[in-house]
Amino acid sequence: MRPGEHVVVVGFGPVAARFVDDVADLAAAGTIRLTVIGGETEPAYNRVLVGEHAMGRAELATMRLADPESLARSGIDVLLGTEVTRIDRARRLLHVTDRATGGSERLGYDRLVLATGARPNLPVLRGLNPDPQAYEHLPAGVTALRDLRDARAVRAVVERRGRVVVLGGGVLGLEAALAAGEAGCPVTVVHHAPWVMTRSLDTAGGALLGRALAEAGVEVFSGAQAREVLLDEDRRFRGLLLQDGREVPGELLLLSVGVTPRTELAEGAGLRTARGVVVDHELEADVEQRVFAIGDCAEVLCPDPSCQVCPGRAGRGPAGLVGPGWRQAEWLAARVRAELEAVAEGGTTVLAPLTEGPAGAVRLKAHQVELACAGAVGGPPWEPRPDGGSVVQWADGSAGTYAQLVLRPDRTLAGYVVLGLPRAAAEIGLLHERGEAVPEDPSVLLRLDGPDAGAGERPATPESTVCHCAGVSMGRITHAVGEGAATVEEVGRATRAATGCGGCKAAVARIIDAHTPAPA
Amino acid sequence: MRPGEHVVVVGFGPVAARFVDDVADLAAAGTIRLTVIGGETEPAYNRVLVGEHAMGRAELATMRLADPESLARSGIDVLLGTEVTRIDRARRLLHVTDRATGGSERLGYDRLVLATGARPNLPVLRGLNPDPQAYEHLPAGVTALRDLRDARAVRAVVERRGRVVVLGGGVLGLEAALAAGEAGCPVTVVHHAPWVMTRSLDTAGGALLGRALAEAGVEVFSGAQAREVLLDEDRRFRGLLLQDGREVPGELLLLSVGVTPRTELAEGAGLRTARGVVVDHELEADVEQRVFAIGDCAEVLCPDPSCQVCPGRAGRGPAGLVGPGWRQAEWLAARVRAELEAVAEGGTTVLAPLTEGPAGAVRLKAHQVELACAGAVGGPPWEPRPDGGSVVQWADGSAGTYAQLVLRPDRTLAGYVVLGLPRAAAEIGLLHERGEAVPEDPSVLLRLDGPDAGAGERPATPESTVCHCAGVSMGRITHAVGEGAATVEEVGRATRAATGCGGCKAAVARIIDAHTPAPA
Repeated sequence: MRPGEHVVVVGFGPVAARFVDDVADLAAAGTIRLTVIGGETEPAYNRVLVGEHAMGRAELATMRLADPESLARSGIDVLLGTEVTRIDRARRLLHVTDRATGGSERLGYDRLVLATGARPNLPVLRGLNPDPQAYEHLPAGVTALRDLRDARAVRAVVERRGRVVVLGGGVLGLEAALAAGEAGCPVTVVHHAPWVMTRSLDTAGGALLGRALAEAGVEVFSGAQAREVLLDEDRRFRGLLLQDGREVPGELLLLSVGVTPRTELAEGAGLRTARGVVVDHELEADVEQRVFAIGDCAEVLCPDPSCQVCPGRAGRGPAGLVGPGWRQAEWLAARVRAELEAVAEGGTTVLAPLTEGPAGAVRLKAHQVELACAGAVGGPPWEPRPDGGSVVQWADGSAGTYAQLVLRPDRTLAGYVVLGLPRAAAEIGLLHERGEAVPEDPSVLLRLDGPDAGAGERPATPESTVCHCAGVSMGRITHAVGEGAATVEEVGRATRAATGCGGCKAAVARIIDAHTPAPA
Repeated sequence: MRPGEHVVVVGFGPVAARFVDDVADLAAAGTIRLTVIGGETEPAYNRVLVGEHAMGRAELATMRLADPESLARSGIDVLLGTEVTRIDRARRLLHVTDRATGGSERLGYDRLVLATGARPNLPVLRGLNPDPQAYEHLPAGVTALRDLRDARAVRAVVERRGRVVVLGGGVLGLEAALAAGEAGCPVTVVHHAPWVMTRSLDTAGGALLGRALAEAGVEVFSGAQAREVLLDEDRRFRGLLLQDGREVPGELLLLSVGVTPRTELAEGAGLRTARGVVVDHELEADVEQRVFAIGDCAEVLCPDPSCQVCPGRAGRGPAGLVGPGWRQAEWLAARVRAELEAVAEGGTTVLAPLTEGPAGAVRLKAHQVELACAGAVGGPPWEPRPDGGSVVQWADGSAGTYAQLVLRPDRTLAGYVVLGLPRAAAEIGLLHERGEAVPEDPSVLLRLDGPDAGAGERPATPESTVCHCAGVSMGRITHAVGEGAATVEEVGRATRAATGCGGCKAAVARIIDAHTPAPA
C-alpha cells in the first residue's frame, strides 16, 4: 500500500462501514483515495438490528452507521444503488451498474476490499423460486428479514398482530419468533432438526430451550419438513404445507435457514473460494495483496498448515455476529495505516497479527428466554471426551434452567451453554473469553443466580468486555463517562459500545449511572 | 390371640430374631408359649453383615442377634438345624425334620409367624445345577455369600488376594466387589444390563457409577451374558465363560443375581403367594388370622384396592434391607401384645396400622464410592414427568459427582440418586424421608459439599434418623449416651442403633464423642 492509491470497498454493510470509518481520515487527508459501493440505495445501517426494527423496537435513526454527506465531505466517493458486476483483476477495473438507470461504467482500483456480506438462503419449496438472485421477487408475505424493505413489510404484519410462521430453528429465527410473540403475534417455528439451535446446543439444552419457547407462547414444530408455500389468489402467503400434510397458516413467513457468503464476484475473478472468499490470516484473497475480504463474505482458511498465527484453524464461515467482522475491518484499516506509515518513514510494517479470539458467544436476545452459548457442544457428562476433557451439567426441569460446561483437560472452557441463569452465564462467558479455568467445584457458579444472588459475583474490572460486538471494555466506557458521555448513545459515539446487537445497552446504562461524576 | 396360645416362628434370621426378642417377655411370663425354628445350626446372626464378615471386616461375635441359652431361660423353645417340611393348617400342625438326624416329628401351633426369608437366585449357567434346593451343592469357589459357611469360604480367598468374579451388578454385588477390591483382590463384575444398579439408577447415574468403579479398580463388564461356569479337574471354579466367548478367570465366583422369597411352605399350605407370601397390611396371610408373614418372605399386597392404610400400594418384594422387616417384626409383636392386653382388659385392640414409610434408601456401603438412592428413578430433566413433576440433575464428569432429584408436583421427592456428594446425600435423604419440599433453587444442596462445605448444613435434630435399619433417632442415641452408653456396641444394646447394616457406626461414634458427659 502506497500513498495515493485508490482503495475501493465493495459492499456497504456494517463491516464495510467500519473499515471506511477507520480510514476516513486518510481519505480526508488525501493520503489515499477511497470509494465505497453499496447495492442498496440506503447508506450503511446496522443490519443486526433489522429484526428489532421489524418488531418495532429499533428506529432507523439509531441504526444508521454512516452519513454519506459527511463521508463526501471527507472526499470519499459513495456509490449507492450500485452493483459491481465484474472484477477485472488484470486491468484492476470494476464493472459497475447503476441499478436505477441501468447505466454501466468501469472504475479503476489499486486495492479492493470485498465486504459483500452474505445472502439469505432460500429453501427449496414449491411456490418459491429457488434462484438466490430471485430473493427480491419472493411472494408477498415471504421474507428473510434481511434489509430495511423486508423490515417494513414485517412491521406491518406485526403491528396488526398477524399470524407469523418462522422457517428455521436457529438463533436468528428464534429471536424473531420470540420478538413477534412478545409483540402479540401468534407464532409457529417450523424446523427440520430434532431440537432448536442444533449447531449450538446438545440434546438437553435444545429440549429445555424448546420448553422455554413453549412457555413463552412460541409453538415449535421440530423434525418438520416444509414442502410448499401456500399462496392465496393474490399470490400472498397464506400458509406453509409440511411433508406430513399439516398446514401451518400465517400471514407472514420468515425464512431463517442460514446465509451464504456472496462469493460470485470473487469466483468470477478467479479468486479462491470455499464456503466464502478464502483469505489468509492477513485477510489477503490474492497473492498480489490487491484484493482483501472481510466480514461475512470472507472465510479465513490459512493455506499454511504450520502457520503459527492460526494453529489448527479450520475455515470459518459467517458467524451471524457482527463482532468478528468488525475486528477484521479494524485490523485491515490498521494494516493500511501501518503500511502507509512504513512507506513514509522508510521502515517496515509492524502490526500484530489478527488472531482469532475464542469462538464468539451466541446470545439469544429475547426478553422471555435467556440463553448464551459458545464453542464446542458437549455430549453427556458421563461419556468420556475425545480430548480427555470433561463435561459438567446442571438441569432443573422445574425451573427450566440449564448449564453445560465443556472443559478441556486443563479445565479451561472449550464451550458452554447456559439457559435461564444470567449471572452464571456472564461469569462463564468471562471464563471462556479469558481462557480461565473453571473452579474445581463448578457448582459454585450456580450460586450466582441462587437465592442469595450476587454473592460471589466477580466485580467487573476495567478489562471486562462489556460490548462483545465492538470489543469495548468496562474501562473505556467509564473513561468516556468521565469525559462527559451521559447517555448510551453518547457512550456509543465515543466508544462504539452498544452500537452492534444492542445486547449490552442495559449494562452500559448501569455503568453510566454508577460512574457519572456527581454535579459540583 | 389369647393367653396361653402357642406362637411358632418359622425361620431364625434377623427379622425372626427381632420378633422373638420383642415378645420374649410374654413367653418368660408364661402369657404365650413361643417356639422358634431355624434351619441353620447357628442361632440368628446379622445376615446383612455376612459380606463384611467374608471380607474380614466384621467378626462373628458382633453379628450375633440371639443367645439360645438366654432364650431358653425365658422358656422359649429354640429348634436349630431343623427344617419345617409342611404346614397342616387344618390340624394346626407343623411337620419338622432334624437335619442332622433326619428324625421327623409334628409340632402343634396356635399362631404361625413365617419368617423364612429369601434364598439367593441361582443363574442358569452350564456347570451349575439350577435347582434352588441345590444351593448347598454349588461347586467349590461358587457362592452367593448368604450364610456363615459361604462367608468362611470367601474369606479364605480374600485373605490370599485371589481373583474374584462377581456375577450381578446390583448393590450387593457391587458392595462385595468394592470390598474385595479394597482387600487387595483383582475383581471383575459381570452383568447383563447396560449399566450397574439398573433398578435404582438412570443411565447417567449408572454411567458415572461405572466410572467410579473403574477408578476404584473394579473391572465391570456391562451388557455381558454369562454362559458357563468353568471348573478345574477338582471341580473348583476357575473362570466364567461369557456368551461372546470371553473368559473371565477367577478363584471365586460370587453370585449376586437377586433373591427369591421362600414361599414353598406357604404354597404347600394353600396360602396365597405372589412374589412372596401375600399378606395384608396387618401382616395376615390367611383369613383366620392364624398365619402371618414378615420380612423378606412376605409381600404386602392389600386385597382391598380402596384400603385407606395403603393407598395405591403395589406388591413389594424383599428390599434387600433389614429395616422394613424389622419394622414388621416390631409391629407384629406389638399387635400380639395389644391383643393380649385387649383380652385381659376386656377392651378392643387399638393399634396404629403399620404404614409403609417412604421407599427405603439404598446406600452403597463402600469406602471408595459414596452412593445413595431411593424411590423413583427419573428420566432426563428435559422430558416431562407423567405425574407432572420434574427432574433436577447435576453431573460433573470431571469430579465424578452426580445428583438426580425426582420431584413430585408439590416438590417433595419421589426419588433421588446422589453419587460422591455425601453431605448433599444426607440432606436429600432427610427431605425424602420426611416428605419435605426441595428448595426452590435445588442447587443450594450442592453447596453442602462445596469448597465451603458445611455452611448451610442442617443441624441434626433429636428427630433425625441416625440408624435407618433399626429406625433410631438422634434423640434416642443421645439419651442412651446420657444414661452411660460409651461405645457404639453399648449404644446398640440400648437402642439397636448400628446393629443392622452398620452404615451408621461412624455417625453413632461421633454422637457419643459429642454427647458424652464430661467427667465431673
